[in-house]
Amino acid sequence: MPSVGVNEIKVDAIEKVTGKSKYVDDLHFSGQLHCKVVFSRVARGKIESIDTSEALRIDGVVDVITVDDVPGNNMTHIIYDDYPLFADGEVKFAGQIVAVVLGETPESADMGRDAVSITYEEEKPVLTIQEGIAPGAPLIYSGDNIFKRYRIVKGDFKKAFEEADIIIENEYYTGYQEHAYIETQGMMAVPGHDGSMIVYGAMQCPFYVHDMVSKVLNLPASKVRIVQTVTGGAFGGKEDVPSLVASVAAVAAYKTGRPCKLMLHRNEDIISTSKRHPAWMKYRTAADKEGNILGIDVDFYMDAGAYATLSPVVLWRGTVHALGPYRCENVRVRTYAVATNKVPCGAFRGFGSPQIIFASEAQMDILAEKVGKDPFEIRKQNALNLGEETITGQKLNQSFGLHKVMDEAFEKSGWAEKRPMWGFEHGEGDIRKGIGVSSIFYGVGLGAGGKNMAKAGAFVQIYGDGSLSFAVGTTDMGQGMRTVLSQIASDEMGIPIEEIYCQSTDTSRIPDSGPTVASRATTMSGNAIIDACTQIKERMAVMAARILEAKPDELEFEDGKVFVRRIPDIFILFKDLAKRCAMEKVHMTAQGWFDTPFVSYNEENGQGWAYFVYAYACNVAEITIDLKTGEITVDRITAAHDVGKAINPQLVEGQIEGGSLQGMGYGVMEDILHDEKGRIVNTGLSTYIIPSIIDAPEMVPIIVEEEFPEGPYGAKGFGEQPLMGVAPAIACAVAHATGAHPDRTPMIPERILEWIEKKGG
Amino acid sequence: MPSVGVNEIKVDAIEKVTGKSKYVDDLHFSGQLHCKVVFSRVARGKIESIDTSEALRIDGVVDVITVDDVPGNNMTHIIYDDYPLFADGEVKFAGQIVAVVLGETPESADMGRDAVSITYEEEKPVLTIQEGIAPGAPLIYSGDNIFKRYRIVKGDFKKAFEEADIIIENEYYTGYQEHAYIETQGMMAVPGHDGSMIVYGAMQCPFYVHDMVSKVLNLPASKVRIVQTVTGGAFGGKEDVPSLVASVAAVAAYKTGRPCKLMLHRNEDIISTSKRHPAWMKYRTAADKEGNILGIDVDFYMDAGAYATLSPVVLWRGTVHALGPYRCENVRVRTYAVATNKVPCGAFRGFGSPQIIFASEAQMDILAEKVGKDPFEIRKQNALNLGEETITGQKLNQSFGLHKVMDEAFEKSGWAEKRPMWGFEHGEGDIRKGIGVSSIFYGVGLGAGGKNMAKAGAFVQIYGDGSLSFAVGTTDMGQGMRTVLSQIASDEMGIPIEEIYCQSTDTSRIPDSGPTVASRATTMSGNAIIDACTQIKERMAVMAARILEAKPDELEFEDGKVFVRRIPDIFILFKDLAKRCAMEKVHMTAQGWFDTPFVSYNEENGQGWAYFVYAYACNVAEITIDLKTGEITVDRITAAHDVGKAINPQLVEGQIEGGSLQGMGYGVMEDILHDEKGRIVNTGLSTYIIPSIIDAPEMVPIIVEEEFPEGPYGAKGFGEQPLMGVAPAIACAVAHATGAHPDRTPMIPERILEWIEKKGG
Repeated sequence: MPSVGVNEIKVDAIEKVTGKSKYVDDLHFSGQLHCKVVFSRVARGKIESIDTSEALRIDGVVDVITVDDVPGNNMTHIIYDDYPLFADGEVKFAGQIVAVVLGETPESADMGRDAVSITYEEEKPVLTIQEGIAPGAPLIYSGDNIFKRYRIVKGDFKKAFEEADIIIENEYYTGYQEHAYIETQGMMAVPGHDGSMIVYGAMQCPFYVHDMVSKVLNLPASKVRIVQTVTGGAFGGKEDVPSLVASVAAVAAYKTGRPCKLMLHRNEDIISTSKRHPAWMKYRTAADKEGNILGIDVDFYMDAGAYATLSPVVLWRGTVHALGPYRCENVRVRTYAVATNKVPCGAFRGFGSPQIIFASEAQMDILAEKVGKDPFEIRKQNALNLGEETITGQKLNQSFGLHKVMDEAFEKSGWAEKRPMWGFEHGEGDIRKGIGVSSIFYGVGLGAGGKNMAKAGAFVQIYGDGSLSFAVGTTDMGQGMRTVLSQIASDEMGIPIEEIYCQSTDTSRIPDSGPTVASRATTMSGNAIIDACTQIKERMAVMAARILEAKPDELEFEDGKVFVRRIPDIFILFKDLAKRCAMEKVHMTAQGWFDTPFVSYNEENGQGWAYFVYAYACNVAEITIDLKTGEITVDRITAAHDVGKAINPQLVEGQIEGGSLQGMGYGVMEDILHDEKGRIVNTGLSTYIIPSIIDAPEMVPIIVEEEFPEGPYGAKGFGEQPLMGVAPAIACAVAHATGAHPDRTPMIPERILEWIEKKGG
Repeated sequence: MPSVGVNEIKVDAIEKVTGKSKYVDDLHFSGQLHCKVVFSRVARGKIESIDTSEALRIDGVVDVITVDDVPGNNMTHIIYDDYPLFADGEVKFAGQIVAVVLGETPESADMGRDAVSITYEEEKPVLTIQEGIAPGAPLIYSGDNIFKRYRIVKGDFKKAFEEADIIIENEYYTGYQEHAYIETQGMMAVPGHDGSMIVYGAMQCPFYVHDMVSKVLNLPASKVRIVQTVTGGAFGGKEDVPSLVASVAAVAAYKTGRPCKLMLHRNEDIISTSKRHPAWMKYRTAADKEGNILGIDVDFYMDAGAYATLSPVVLWRGTVHALGPYRCENVRVRTYAVATNKVPCGAFRGFGSPQIIFASEAQMDILAEKVGKDPFEIRKQNALNLGEETITGQKLNQSFGLHKVMDEAFEKSGWAEKRPMWGFEHGEGDIRKGIGVSSIFYGVGLGAGGKNMAKAGAFVQIYGDGSLSFAVGTTDMGQGMRTVLSQIASDEMGIPIEEIYCQSTDTSRIPDSGPTVASRATTMSGNAIIDACTQIKERMAVMAARILEAKPDELEFEDGKVFVRRIPDIFILFKDLAKRCAMEKVHMTAQGWFDTPFVSYNEENGQGWAYFVYAYACNVAEITIDLKTGEITVDRITAAHDVGKAINPQLVEGQIEGGSLQGMGYGVMEDILHDEKGRIVNTGLSTYIIPSIIDAPEMVPIIVEEEFPEGPYGAKGFGEQPLMGVAPAIACAVAHATGAHPDRTPMIPERILEWIEKKGG
């Protein structure tokens, strides 16, 4: 019985639903200290003094750590070296780490934190993109507050606009989104008796943490070990931030020689950790009278916050996805990551693309309206075909499920029946129903923007009883990686999943495998596991061949047996073979490795083979709107996704449903608000509203499998994609129900009323 | 600067001398329970009842575990399946595990242990070898109380004895020896939230522990992880016993779901854990009148205790070493491991050879006396030469330092001057000085008796900063393995030892690498590390070659550089290369593997290639004896050892000095005594006397290096050897000083007086 393609129960399901899983806050080491961070309450200013004397007088307060205690490099290297771990003389956002109080108990640390007194020379903060790029703006970064800019130039966009029948020009804004992972950020640093440092915690990217902790402590990387604990959600929020949390705990542990735990409370987490970038987009589309896109001219600004962190690469993905899966020969895209005095924005499921997709899809809706076509039709008409090129000049020549996801979503949503019957024109009273669509693509993996990290290792060990354990460098943060990779290992060796154990991700076991982002875990680690299993099988096959009097390359590993291909009666049980191999000294461990296929990108013109493959999705959203209150209810989301191959269909559906709901929250509810001094005001989940189960619409997940030959069992990764197209589909439905085109997220009632009013006026 | 051959400071020296090292008893997990074992106080009997009710009423006692709580297989598989983990209806020695009390504190567990009431139907125990093999003896094992027998038959020993000029026939006894490791046995079992079990503790052989814990818990091996903690001495005592200690803790952790610690106190450790086998030897030697050995006829009985444990393999090594490094064409050796109702004996530095060497070397001394030759001369005359065969028919054709160690010891000890001037005949009053010699060989590694386990894995990782970490399957128990292997890794990659980190030995990282015994860690793990480093260097060399415009096979890794051979000016710093490799996705981890060279053994006649190589040693002991009191003082030990290559000469000297002192304890002090019911009476270090620093003689360690081409840098392993020849050299010196030949160990004053008296009479 193969395991791939089967709805195996998550390998960590039982431990999670029974509350046994050990998250970082469940770890306790004898002699441990508790860390409490003193965050800046000032968005921009010089630090005049840090007075810790009161704090140190508090019973149970052991120490207060500041920049002066960092033994190595205080700089957070993510892409640039601009972000001090501990504020060093100045602060650039409210929520920046200034000092850390260490207490024998969480309570004493809390009291100590409140007793640390910091005085600032405050300066006026830059709080918006427009303020950041305004001439004469206070400088946060370099000469112009632009952390990074990209451009795509293709064809002759000017000519296209000159020759166009239709030009659509609009501005769009998208808001913040908070990851709202269930488990807040936390780390436990444990100094080794042997001069080493081990850090346990919630994270996506152990190798980022490893690199930063090594440098902050000035230790050889070999003496630092990062172990991921069970992680309660991440969504990009645990990509870069854990490096800082870990480094703070590690500095404390290094100085005191004691285990140090740093857990952020929800309000601390919200004010200090990354978010989805708010964006401002100026989007011009040129089309002929049939609605064929002739050219686009896009300016895309992201509000990056005070430090660059991941903004350059987030911006790159947004840039490449500026049009979505449509044909267009004449392109100018200019994109910018702008510095402001707010919390640094970073990775969030979709990674720069949800913003630009919101704009580009809204343009499609307006175009459809202009040429009198159905929004689905206009998308089908402009959708790329196999062999055609994206705006970066990449030819889509394999695993191409775009039209299939569109056709499936069209059918399963009942679009053809609903669209003509619903809409602003077809209601009575104040209630209207709307149906909207979006179609998107998603470049899988790090792409050319992160190609140096596009590698993965895997360790596999077969034991003498025939069971298998493996370790990988990517992480499970709830998405099901442990299960999916166990299924792959199961099928590779032909043994039951019950005998497979996935070890904790641990930098001391596995080479740097890049970050767990960009929907890359299944593809990358899956292939690395296959490589390791193949090495071991080759060695075991020599022994099996001797026993079965066959040739090693005639053997199949399946169903707990090793048998001669086409002669299933000639076999040895895998367990017996493993035992024999152990006795006869066959080496049954291996380090697997996978390096991605070719990618390329020319920064001059934005042309290149940006990603090694794309996934595709089509979302249809059905909504009900009260035209009087602006209240919006999302009733149903049909989400068709081409995933290459669903290793575990139920987990794929889970990803679709979870991602769709998170996308709905982005579209209609969620936003982070600041006061006039640049301080976040909605710092809890009572004021930062995310969808709950009552908000959840009916979900119709559809799996399309256009296998990717270079992926494990044809899989290509798609975890981010479910979020990306939901807000645009809702916007399309809102336009249908109200006749007014949304131009910003979240589409909250006040704004819907405003759009309706504007349209009316 | 190479590191191999240099006296690098032990990598764990600082942590140890500053008290930072974390031994298992230094580990504390939240919610942990403490285990106290209820040991049998009866040497032989049926268990009638186990009453735990009183114990369970004690505040803090959580549970009492017996055989009924074992979820899997209760049997301790070491070589046979005869040893129940928990006594199952009967006990066979005083000190056997009957039940385990779990308490919230060590104190409550102690009280609970004392409150468990066990009733036995006692039976008369078998307490000596002679009782065990007596006709009609109560049966402890199988039909004849013989766990295992071996024989070597070569040539025609009968004819040799018929034709001999001289026949020497004697019986010898050697006593128990307790390992007396500084750290007693201890384990901490921690149930994983994910259905796994992790056991931390003091051990030599994690893979033995792994196998047993998996079976006792009935878990797939992949879900059990064994991690060695810093181990405070072992000497063979932590070869098999830790499997039981770990399994007890694991059963407790499995049942309660809580971390469970089991630490043995010294008295518990002494009564329940393995010892060096007492032995009884009947040794006949045939020689010509020149003192050339013509034949030997040996019967060797070991007192194995109540269960087989490692006795069959201990017996095998003793069998192969029955004559030592001497020439003899006509051989009969018959050896037996005999069951008695005492604690099972097992591995102890020398592993069955110190006993038989004591007898065979004593025979040499008597032979020398008979033919009127110097004991050194008789040994040189009979010593094997390069290309000659051992009694198992193995030709010694490489790395053969026997004559060199003898010549060096002869010179450095001043034998030629001292021997004629000292001795019984040359003193006044009651004080005599004696000088004695022994020469020995030692089969390195497991040999043909354990060839299925003669394998080793190693994991090596190079980080982007050029530092290196590695893991191996062998263990450091104080002997310095971490340092020696770090030196090997250092030279392989050409990087400083400071940048190398040796991970804890952990079954989840490394394939079964056999036990850490038989002086095999340096050779086996060293070669596996070299294999792993070679794989990584091959990959890095491709990148370096591209940078240096050279061919990969022209490159050398040395002194922190990679340079073109013979053109040292063309180089790249290793650090820079590692960084570049990390950027360019070169795979920088590998699993290394080493499988031993050919060995063989025919159990029918005891002929074969028993070990892949031998180490050699010659000891000279100088003593002072008070003829009136029998008091013996060991003044000086000269110990010349052929180690192939001393990776770290200072550590080799440390091994020589420590082993010599332990061998001296074995020779003149240490013994375990039982009462008439078979219970050990000297259960503490106040009554079981080991040498202290005041007893330490002057040591003259001599390193001889006859490089072993198949060992890492020529090393061949020798850690056990320093102990082996000391007691015989002292016995030779006693004979010199008293004129009486000792026939048993320990050579305590009472016995010396007895021998003197017997000689006089």
